[in-house]
Amino acid sequence: MIQVDLNCDMGESFGTYRLGSDSELLKCITSANIACGFHAGDPSVMRLTVRQAIAHGTSIGAHPGLPDLVGFGRRRMDITPDEAYDMVSYQMGALMAITLQEGGKLHHVKPHGALYNMAAVSRPLAEAIACAVHRIDPGLILYGLAGSELVDAGKRTGLRTASEVFADRTYQDDGTLTPRSLPGALITDEEQSVRQVLRMVKEGVVMSQSGKIIPIVADTICIHGDSPHAPVFARTLRTRLESEGVRVQSIL
Amino acid sequence: MIQVDLNCDMGESFGTYRLGSDSELLKCITSANIACGFHAGDPSVMRLTVRQAIAHGTSIGAHPGLPDLVGFGRRRMDITPDEAYDMVSYQMGALMAITLQEGGKLHHVKPHGALYNMAAVSRPLAEAIACAVHRIDPGLILYGLAGSELVDAGKRTGLRTASEVFADRTYQDDGTLTPRSLPGALITDEEQSVRQVLRMVKEGVVMSQSGKIIPIVADTICIHGDSPHAPVFARTLRTRLESEGVRVQSIL
Amino acid sequence: MIQVDLNCDMGESFGTYRLGSDSELLKCITSANIACGFHAGDPSVMRLTVRQAIAHGTSIGAHPGLPDLVGFGRRRMDITPDEAYDMVSYQMGALMAITLQEGGKLHHVKPHGALYNMAAVSRPLAEAIACAVHRIDPGLILYGLAGSELVDAGKRTGLRTASEVFADRTYQDDGTLTPRSLPGALITDEEQSVRQVLRMVKEGVVMSQSGKIIPIVADTICIHGDSPHAPVFARTLRTRLESEGVRVQSIL
Amino acid sequence: MIQVDLNCDMGESFGTYRLGSDSELLKCITSANIACGFHAGDPSVMRLTVRQAIAHGTSIGAHPGLPDLVGFGRRRMDITPDEAYDMVSYQMGALMAITLQEGGKLHHVKPHGALYNMAAVSRPLAEAIACAVHRIDPGLILYGLAGSELVDAGKRTGLRTASEVFADRTYQDDGTLTPRSLPGALITDEEQSVRQVLRMVKEGVVMSQSGKIIPIVADTICIHGDSPHAPVFARTLRTRLESEGVRVQSIL
Repeated sequence: MIQVDLNCDMGESFGTYRLGSDSELLKCITSANIACGFHAGDPSVMRLTVRQAIAHGTSIGAHPGLPDLVGFGRRRMDITPDEAYDMVSYQMGALMAITLQEGGKLHHVKPHGALYNMAAVSRPLAEAIACAVHRIDPGLILYGLAGSELVDAGKRTGLRTASEVFADRTYQDDGTLTPRSLPGALITDEEQSVRQVLRMVKEGVVMSQSGKIIPIVADTICIHGDSPHAPVFARTLRTRLESEGVRVQSIL
Repeated sequence: MIQVDLNCDMGESFGTYRLGSDSELLKCITSANIACGFHAGDPSVMRLTVRQAIAHGTSIGAHPGLPDLVGFGRRRMDITPDEAYDMVSYQMGALMAITLQEGGKLHHVKPHGALYNMAAVSRPLAEAIACAVHRIDPGLILYGLAGSELVDAGKRTGLRTASEVFADRTYQDDGTLTPRSLPGALITDEEQSVRQVLRMVKEGVVMSQSGKIIPIVADTICIHGDSPHAPVFARTLRTRLESEGVRVQSIL
Repeated sequence: MIQVDLNCDMGESFGTYRLGSDSELLKCITSANIACGFHAGDPSVMRLTVRQAIAHGTSIGAHPGLPDLVGFGRRRMDITPDEAYDMVSYQMGALMAITLQEGGKLHHVKPHGALYNMAAVSRPLAEAIACAVHRIDPGLILYGLAGSELVDAGKRTGLRTASEVFADRTYQDDGTLTPRSLPGALITDEEQSVRQVLRMVKEGVVMSQSGKIIPIVADTICIHGDSPHAPVFARTLRTRLESEGVRVQSIL
Repeated sequence: MIQVDLNCDMGESFGTYRLGSDSELLKCITSANIACGFHAGDPSVMRLTVRQAIAHGTSIGAHPGLPDLVGFGRRRMDITPDEAYDMVSYQMGALMAITLQEGGKLHHVKPHGALYNMAAVSRPLAEAIACAVHRIDPGLILYGLAGSELVDAGKRTGLRTASEVFADRTYQDDGTLTPRSLPGALITDEEQSVRQVLRMVKEGVVMSQSGKIIPIVADTICIHGDSPHAPVFARTLRTRLESEGVRVQSIL
């Protein structure tokens, strides 16, 4: 039976600031990527989010980011592979301890924002992150952009990996995402999003912006949690996947 | 055979800023309390310090502090027990992951600065910290001021504890430290410091500022690493302890 | 003609995080206290808020806080008067430059949260803050709790001051606010809030929790902007004040 | 009479961390670029440094950097021109207020580290920074790399500018600095440094790494204060300049 994981970034509140619809989204996603305090999240938000994820049976992932709270980890920074290795380890460890205390177990790691994008194309950064994850626990699963350096580095390191695809983004002929700065980068029509996902999951292909059919590995689908519409879309997507015979579950 | 541990705060550099004489001190102390990024330290400094401690066979402890880098964690903050629980867990986890990656094992936890002082007198804070440590690993040893709420809370929680005494501070009749704001709080004469330590370790007593002999438990001696003179004093103290038949070693 | 100022804390968003209903509230308040980046706010949020305030003709105040973003500046910290002097100066300067660039002029200063509360009762902190304000511009108006050390220190320093009262808090017989930890500290009934304000403004008295009538100086009324209901309440209060013949305007 | 300014970055201590030899260097430089709390410095360090600069009659400049304390502002970040505008304004304002309180006057602005390098080659960033400075005070002098976009943007905006040259860096045929990653980027021989400076100041040329003589404008010379040898080198350089008939003074 074909299966797929639905993941969403979570725990991105900070102090008095609230962000996202975590409680709603936890009802239908299968993997939660929890912010670790660098780009978002704080120790208390992390604990609350871990508790919620455990209560829903959702797989818990670390979601480490760049040390840029005001920029929400979305601005590229010139960090070295060693710095990436160290900041990812630090953040993973922090979440791991909190998860352990709450009776859960860390399941995966997915870098956030600019760190995710940088690790998608930089082999040295990708290897540093994969190595950090592997040296903490070789049983962890590394989530990365389908076709990215990060997924490749994870495989070479001996980690299991999850190739991530997007419901609301269009693809180029080479399998990369259309940059947000270009027209047509975002898919705003819900039905079109759902159909793109179904095709990626069931047929292993996506139609590029130019109309070409290209192969893609879709282990996990990213739900963007920062839109108010996210919970409804996640519910719709999950229902459609299941009605088409796809099992929606976390990666085992 | 009588034995005692020598501990010192370490890894308090940050980014381009250097602090302390870690390499020198690691030659004669037996436990390193490593800063975890809130009051001092950063992920890369933490890794370097863990490596050095492992190379010297020094026991590694987490040294969590308040989130106050500019104040070096020395300014009291009105935090709740839940906040203490969360920030200690976060910092411990971060150091634990880095230690694990480097092939070491976390041995103890000692709160830093104002958090240490607050936990010495506040039962709710002490219990929150002890509980955080215990829920991560009940085999960890909790370091706290001799006679403090923190040591008591550790014992009640089921942790092993280490009662910490000071070579360079005088004591009051009730066994507490003379506040730094009072005259005679600091012992600046090296020989007097050494004799106070010997008496605490070998006889289990200390003479208070008023001349009273009071009982004190001295499992571990704090070496203040921020003085340029610290490495020389640590060496002297260790030599004197050993020549007096005291075994200087980490707590097993 | 009797007059009063309505002030509200503003610009407390940070990076991607949104907080408050600034645009709505600016329609009926007369003074905006703009966060300066320590407890909330960032340089870009500050600029946007200054622009909005200027567009509405609202008086612009600096709203400096403790360096505690995760605690939103609400946790007391043991800072020295010198540290208070320096951190208030820094934050005021930052806002002053941005206000100047936008064609406005700084009108007042009101410390935030724990700094406000600490300066209400600590003469040394109050004097440090008053002195920092005076040395930047003796024409600035210092906002503080009615009857507080801060207002006293401002007067002694030669500053104009504004005594602040609260619509939604009850008072004790000595004129201080009922601590939030005690029952009945908050007034949740809107009509009761409005009547308390009218009496403070028109008669210069407030009825304490025990029923005693005590004198109070009400130059400015604090609108708490963090409740979703705040814009409606602010509008109601302003309408009632004006219908009772009170001129609602900033302090000249 | 030929004249030149000697500038040095200052006030880069932070909290308990000490950096640089400010007191020594202030004896022979003519312009101090004072860190403003983002990449280094804190409000109390800023005040102390301003006081020292005023006591020595040294011109005071703001030295704004990227919000990256752990990276000391040396890591490039993808910031927008608006963000640059806002963060430079914020930092300048903070230093301006402190300078004003201490009886001094802000003289110039020089961006720090990665922000300096980014503004040297990006016209939009350069224009944002120049505009921020101009809108605060058109009498301020903008310091930038000789031949850079920043100096050009300053001139276009109507600011006075100072072209900065380096004693300890080699130059390429196009007048840019040899990147640090290439061999021969640094001049470690003191006599060679001094001769390069003398030629730049007296003849308006520099010999490139390949031996070509290229024109260069040398209004101000950067002394790197982070080397322990800096005070001695600064003294030597100043003595040599003066003995060759160059007047060493701040830009009027």
